[in-house]
Parts: sequence; C-alpha cells; structure tokens
Amino acid sequence: MRAGVFDSGVGGLSVVKSLKAHALFSEIIYFGDTARVPYGVKDKNTIIRYSLEALEFFKNFDIDIMIAACNSVSAYAIDELRQNAPFKVSGVIEPGVLALKNKASRKDLSILILGTRATIQSGRYEKLLKAHGFSNITSVAPSLFVPIVEEGLFEGEVLETAMHHYFKGLEAPDFIILGCTHFPLIAKAIGNYFPHATLIHSGDAIVEFLQNEYALKGVFEETELKLFASENPDQLKATAALWLGHQSV
Amino acid sequence: MRAGVFDSGVGGLSVVKSLKAHALFSEIIYFGDTARVPYGVKDKNTIIRYSLEALEFFKNFDIDIMIAACNSVSAYAIDELRQNAPFKVSGVIEPGVLALKNKASRKDLSILILGTRATIQSGRYEKLLKAHGFSNITSVAPSLFVPIVEEGLFEGEVLETAMHHYFKGLEAPDFIILGCTHFPLIAKAIGNYFPHATLIHSGDAIVEFLQNEYALKGVFEETELKLFASENPDQLKATAALWLGHQSV
Repeated sequence: MRAGVFDSGVGGLSVVKSLKAHALFSEIIYFGDTARVPYGVKDKNTIIRYSLEALEFFKNFDIDIMIAACNSVSAYAIDELRQNAPFKVSGVIEPGVLALKNKASRKDLSILILGTRATIQSGRYEKLLKAHGFSNITSVAPSLFVPIVEEGLFEGEVLETAMHHYFKGLEAPDFIILGCTHFPLIAKAIGNYFPHATLIHSGDAIVEFLQNEYALKGVFEETELKLFASENPDQLKATAALWLGHQSV
Repeated sequence: MRAGVFDSGVGGLSVVKSLKAHALFSEIIYFGDTARVPYGVKDKNTIIRYSLEALEFFKNFDIDIMIAACNSVSAYAIDELRQNAPFKVSGVIEPGVLALKNKASRKDLSILILGTRATIQSGRYEKLLKAHGFSNITSVAPSLFVPIVEEGLFEGEVLETAMHHYFKGLEAPDFIILGCTHFPLIAKAIGNYFPHATLIHSGDAIVEFLQNEYALKGVFEETELKLFASENPDQLKATAALWLGHQSV
C-alpha cells in the first residue's frame, strides 16, 4: 500500500510520523505546498484550487490513497478531491470525530475544537460532531499558534501568553481536538493548560480510521518516505529529520 | 501622475496613507497579493516570480511609477522589476535609508533594523546603511509581529510578551527602521518599548524620496484609489476603509 500525504507545509509530517509508527504503508509520498503556506487564512475557493493542483501532482505516483493532513484542506476541498481523484481520498476531520466518539463515554462531554480560521469557519468539525450526538461544543481559532510553532516556541512565555489570550474565560473541556497539523507540537503546553482534557491528534486519528475503514494492517517492515515541497525542499527534509526522530511529536 | 502600489497583502495600505496625505498622485492602483501573503517567509526566487507576475498586472494600467511597498519585494526583486518594467520602479529600502540619513546627526548612532526573515536575510538595509557610513547596526526578524498585527493585537499582553522575546538584551537604539509594512501599526508600542528611538516609517520615507528624487509635488486635490487583491478584495476594501480613516496608522 502506498499513500500520498498532502499538507500546506511541513506540519503534515506530524501525521506521517503516526503513519510510519504503525507501518501502514510501504511508501509515503509527501507533498508540502511550502511556497503558499499557510492555507488556514485563505479563502475556500483558493484552498480548493491549490488542493486540485496537489492532486495533479499525486497522479504522477502509483498511490492507493491520498491523505489530506491539512485540516483546512479537509474542511473545504475533500469533496472536490474525491470527485477528481483516481484513488481513495481521506481527510482528517472525519477520523478525528470518530476517534473522539470512540473515547467519549457520554454525549454531553464538553469539546473544544482548535483550528485555523478556515477550519473553524467551515464548521465541519462542529457539524459532524453534532451528527454524532454531541452538543457541548466550543470552537476557537487561535491564529497565532501556527506562527508560534513555526518560530519554534513550543514552550515559554510567548506561548503561555497566547494561550491565555485565546483560552481565558473558557471552561475546562473534556476533549480538545487539535484541528491543525501544527498543534501536536504544542500538545504538551495545551495539555498543561487544560490538564483534565483528552487531546485528539489527527495522526493517531487517521491511523485508527485507516485500520477500521480500510482494514489496513501494520504489515510493512519499513515505510519509505519521499519528500516534495513547492519551495525549499531542503528545509522540509531538515524538519522531517528533526520531527520524525523526535519523540514528543 | 499615477502610481501602482504593490504589496504582498493589505500592509502596503500604510504606505498608501502617506502617499494620499501628501497628494503626490492623481490615482493610485493598489494590488495586494492576498492569496499568497506573507512573502516575508518565502524564498528569494519565489518572491521574484510573484513580483514579476504583479508587474504584468500593473502593465494593464497607465501608471508612471510602480512602488513596491513590501520590504521583502524591495529586498529581493527590485532589480528584476526595473529590468522588465516600462515605467519607473521604486522600493522602500533606499528611501528608508535616505530618510534615516537625513535625520541622523552622526554616523555612530545606533540603528535597529526590524524586518521579516526575508528582508533581514537579504542584508539590503545593512549593506546600504554601511555604504552611507553607518556601522552601529543590529538586525532582528521579529516573525510574530506580522501575525500579531493581522490578529489586530496592536497593544496588550501578547504584543508586549513578543516584544520582550525579540528585544530583551538589546541596547536601546537611536533609530529603528520599521522594515515591514505591518510594523507602523504597532509603532506606538515599539516606541513605548524604546522611548528614545526615532522610528523610520516606509510611508513617510517614500514620500520624502519621491519629492527629492522625482521632484513630485502635492498638487492633486484628491487621489483616486483603486484596490485589487488576488483573494478576498472585500476584506482589502474593508481594511482600507479602516486604516485610511484611522489616525494612528
């Protein structure tokens, strides 16, 4: 089995890490649109256009499934990708909601969705959670988290102040959906802020989804990873070396 | 006289504000590449490619000069724009350095350059300042300032913490170059942090430059402003209404 993983930038490597750890694929083709990152502040139509361009790129490879690791792509472009793809397409929103559902003992538990402006405005997480019977839902777009992660400030005063800015006044939730590939890198800090919350990570969720939905088994001894970027591929490769060897991601 | 003003996003409106206030042009065509903002984190080659695309757009209009309000464009793409443009092209780096020179009583005064990663890495401000005899120069790329401005946090704890993060350990400078169109919006906070520094603003600097270099006079009763964006033009128009009627910008 071969997968194509598409992300707006380097963040999707946090999803690749989970896929590799579970050995679901013999090969992963990763494409990060680093020249046009971030998608989370862009319009629906722009996100769809860029996603369809990425689809054309993946058609160059013999893949079985294309995984949109980017939540903003998952929120806006999944239908268009499915209509045009000669292979299976999966986003991370449905897997995230199903992972939460499998962990939730009751439907009245409180859920905090964290995502980019595009993901939150799409309302996709909220709609799907409601369809599964959840109702105690709060959505927040902490726009500064992405640049803070890209600045490498995974802990410390800047992140703490930003968390306080976005989280003050919120009741402690039972679940937090990390609805952006950048957020797993600050999962520890978010977990410290809300110590009783269960965090939902797109990487773990997609693994669970692929195992359940497509009966994928971790049968491959090694996953070959091929990295492509629309700009600065060396930086993507350096980040991959750092993240995929880094235990906290 | 007609000008085309090019910026990576909405930030260049702070330059338009200065141009309008001095009535240097009868018409300003503004193009913000809002679909691909920010440029300040992109590669040199990408910035050049996008700038040449913007040049093609401006060729549709009968303009006398194209002004690159974006410091990252000014840092990397001015030569390429000049080679291909049928009209005059000006960036904001040379004007900024000349404005500083006109205000500086001595060559040993200390200068702090603030810019995006691309602008700082280009070394263009530093090189030009040295060519004019200045040597006490510090360069900092406070990458979080742009998203903080875009989040509308022009004052308060998040901005204060970020300033402390980037500025701690720096000696108080005599001059600060606001080397990004976003930074004039937090000029007050930066000025409070370094109360004895003189701030150099690209908008004021380009006005001074056009008056000196091209002997432009403020002869037009009104400047007609036409706004174009590669994405979400309504948001650009809303920002223009806010900023151009807003006294602190």
